[in-house]
Amino acid sequence: MGDKKIQPRIMPGFMELLPPDQILFNKMKDTIREVYESFGFLPLDTPVLELSDVLLAKAGGETEKQIYRFTKGDTDMALRFDLTVPLARYVAQHAGELTFPFKRYQISKVYRGERPQKGRFREFYQCDIDMIGNDELPLIHDAEIPAVIYSIFKKLDFGKFTIRLNNRKVLNGFFDSLGLGGSIADILRTIDKIDKIGAEKVLAELSDFGIDSEKGEKILSFITAEGTADEKISYLKSLGIENDTFSEGVSELEQVSAYMRLFGIEDSYFTIDLTIARGLDYYTGTVYETVLDDYKGLGSVCSGGRYDNLTGYYTKQKMPGIGISIGLTRLFSQLRAAGIIQPESASVVKVLVAPLGVDLKFPLEVADKLRSAGISAEVYYQDKAMKHKMKYANKMGIPYVAIIGEDELKNGEVTVKNMLTGEQSTAAADDIVSMIQ
Amino acid sequence: MGDKKIQPRIMPGFMELLPPDQILFNKMKDTIREVYESFGFLPLDTPVLELSDVLLAKAGGETEKQIYRFTKGDTDMALRFDLTVPLARYVAQHAGELTFPFKRYQISKVYRGERPQKGRFREFYQCDIDMIGNDELPLIHDAEIPAVIYSIFKKLDFGKFTIRLNNRKVLNGFFDSLGLGGSIADILRTIDKIDKIGAEKVLAELSDFGIDSEKGEKILSFITAEGTADEKISYLKSLGIENDTFSEGVSELEQVSAYMRLFGIEDSYFTIDLTIARGLDYYTGTVYETVLDDYKGLGSVCSGGRYDNLTGYYTKQKMPGIGISIGLTRLFSQLRAAGIIQPESASVVKVLVAPLGVDLKFPLEVADKLRSAGISAEVYYQDKAMKHKMKYANKMGIPYVAIIGEDELKNGEVTVKNMLTGEQSTAAADDIVSMIQ
Repeated sequence: MGDKKIQPRIMPGFMELLPPDQILFNKMKDTIREVYESFGFLPLDTPVLELSDVLLAKAGGETEKQIYRFTKGDTDMALRFDLTVPLARYVAQHAGELTFPFKRYQISKVYRGERPQKGRFREFYQCDIDMIGNDELPLIHDAEIPAVIYSIFKKLDFGKFTIRLNNRKVLNGFFDSLGLGGSIADILRTIDKIDKIGAEKVLAELSDFGIDSEKGEKILSFITAEGTADEKISYLKSLGIENDTFSEGVSELEQVSAYMRLFGIEDSYFTIDLTIARGLDYYTGTVYETVLDDYKGLGSVCSGGRYDNLTGYYTKQKMPGIGISIGLTRLFSQLRAAGIIQPESASVVKVLVAPLGVDLKFPLEVADKLRSAGISAEVYYQDKAMKHKMKYANKMGIPYVAIIGEDELKNGEVTVKNMLTGEQSTAAADDIVSMIQ
Repeated sequence: MGDKKIQPRIMPGFMELLPPDQILFNKMKDTIREVYESFGFLPLDTPVLELSDVLLAKAGGETEKQIYRFTKGDTDMALRFDLTVPLARYVAQHAGELTFPFKRYQISKVYRGERPQKGRFREFYQCDIDMIGNDELPLIHDAEIPAVIYSIFKKLDFGKFTIRLNNRKVLNGFFDSLGLGGSIADILRTIDKIDKIGAEKVLAELSDFGIDSEKGEKILSFITAEGTADEKISYLKSLGIENDTFSEGVSELEQVSAYMRLFGIEDSYFTIDLTIARGLDYYTGTVYETVLDDYKGLGSVCSGGRYDNLTGYYTKQKMPGIGISIGLTRLFSQLRAAGIIQPESASVVKVLVAPLGVDLKFPLEVADKLRSAGISAEVYYQDKAMKHKMKYANKMGIPYVAIIGEDELKNGEVTVKNMLTGEQSTAAADDIVSMIQ
């Protein structure tokens, strides 16, 4: 091996955790997976590496620049930069073998060679669900998606949150009705600055796009409308806009809101936000963002929406769908940095089995009993004083210590100490599982 | 989007599954993770991409040729080809922040750009555990590893299996005692052919290495010794070899066998196999292989062993360890191809909630009740005849259908049909969770 050592290090922009944080991260990841599966989404695990022509069918601009792409032999390949393109490829490739609507989840790492900066990752987990229809996908699914979001963030327990709902048809129809269908992107970007520069300056900038003050005022009052979901819908109807797209969008918003209540989503957990557009050339109907009420600065922690055709680059079949994504690596790192989440334990072990001057046979049997019941157990093998064993359990955050000394061995018993309360009790080894549970 | 479509496809050597197989695969992966955690191994999730100089610190030959390596900007990077090198890097990098012995598991994909051929994958899961000591690692851990293997393959339930045990010190000491310490690799390769070419030809080949017939016979009878673990140990002792390494190895084998029994491993599930060497320049003590008794042709499905120093390329600290790896992608694909495992269901859903001419409110409440209790539920939204709903449940392998018609709605009840037995019973909706469980 010689003496020259290579400095052990990883690249910037790659998140790697110490065990206590990894345990915490996995807990969040497991919760998301459980909820996805509880709604019947099927697991998918596509390759990290794909052919460049397949992955880049749609891409351009920023994506092309950021992608990790290389050649090995004659093959031009790349690391996936999201989970949506692989899904489109998969559904087009296997359409004949899938049952529609096809509901899938994928929780996997994706890769973007961005310039490293705070809060930006080059390797990060996306937790995606999508429902894909063959030709059509009923509107009820637009409410099922927020039901999943609701269930996840209730379980993750970061406090109150709000699912913000909009519909691209409402936006498109509204701007169409003003004869401004072509400049939606510019208009929304300008309006976004209202908190910073004020209404007057926004109106001035809008006039640069040839929007007169009358239309400007209409846009402003549209975009800044306040109220509950029902009030927003009434407001939209009251505008008297005669545009089919607009009417369809308002009707969809109304139906989706009604369905969401059927799914058990409390009114205080959702709102209609007419400023939400999300990727302008991609989404075509309902769109979502989710904000944590106490940590609005984090931005949207779960976003997505409905699209008309997922698979257009690969097949002629029309496949509408709807989906959301949670950028878990970023969310975790932000919540952790803000002190909103904290590791609870440095160990996955629930019971430390601590033999005290006895042969290992009986302690190992006790550990086996625990493991067979699904309770993780570790045996402290080293022949040290009890205080060392207790100190270890404390340091690692192991909640129970099962002490087995000569008396316990003689009687086939175990003394279980609850490390949190300090309580201690002795019982037959056969009862240890129920003692812990 | 135009009319030109890109053919949706993946690269050869990359395994991608349809949902029924993915569900089956995940079940195996989850079982392995559960057992790893039940023994207190901590999760680790290192980056897929690392700096080439770090990953290739030790590599050479085949590894260098197979690795996916490329440059982006000024950075020379590569996809990991195993989980051991990243572990070594991690432990060296974070030694001051870890508690030793450090027990970690990692279940992740690794990458090898091999020529694609049957049974070989370019992207595959490895399921690794390792225990790393700081300076020393007690011998009991050499028995804990087979205890983990035992627990996993009992749970995976592919029938009877055998953990084959050896110790590199026994091999090294034996050949040293014959003055043949330098040619172990050649000798073992030759002996490996005994089933094909017979003992006589093996002796002839051994003589090519300058091994006379007396030594040749000794080697042959050593390597072909039969018997139980205890009989093998007696045999080794009976050889009267005076070599410290050999004696140490025999003593370790004896102790590890004894410990394994304490861990509850039945004698019929392990054996001592003096032919096992595993990576000759890497392992230094106990080595393992695992074979499925009914499918020996699959080769070892779980292998590993003890090594003296994991982190020599990165740090001066001496870190001995012991570990095993399950090549899950290969194992799954072999078992599946041989028909040993079969998908059980095309769905993760346990209950299909089927409204029959009633509003969705009550059915959605029932689904929510199930999900809250950790039971996955899907609602059949489309207003179709009951036979369509039953057919869907059958096709997807959903075990229960919860029928909600007008009578059920009126009485706040649910009719649950067990799709396997055909049994059907009606009860209060509040009891649905206990009906399913």
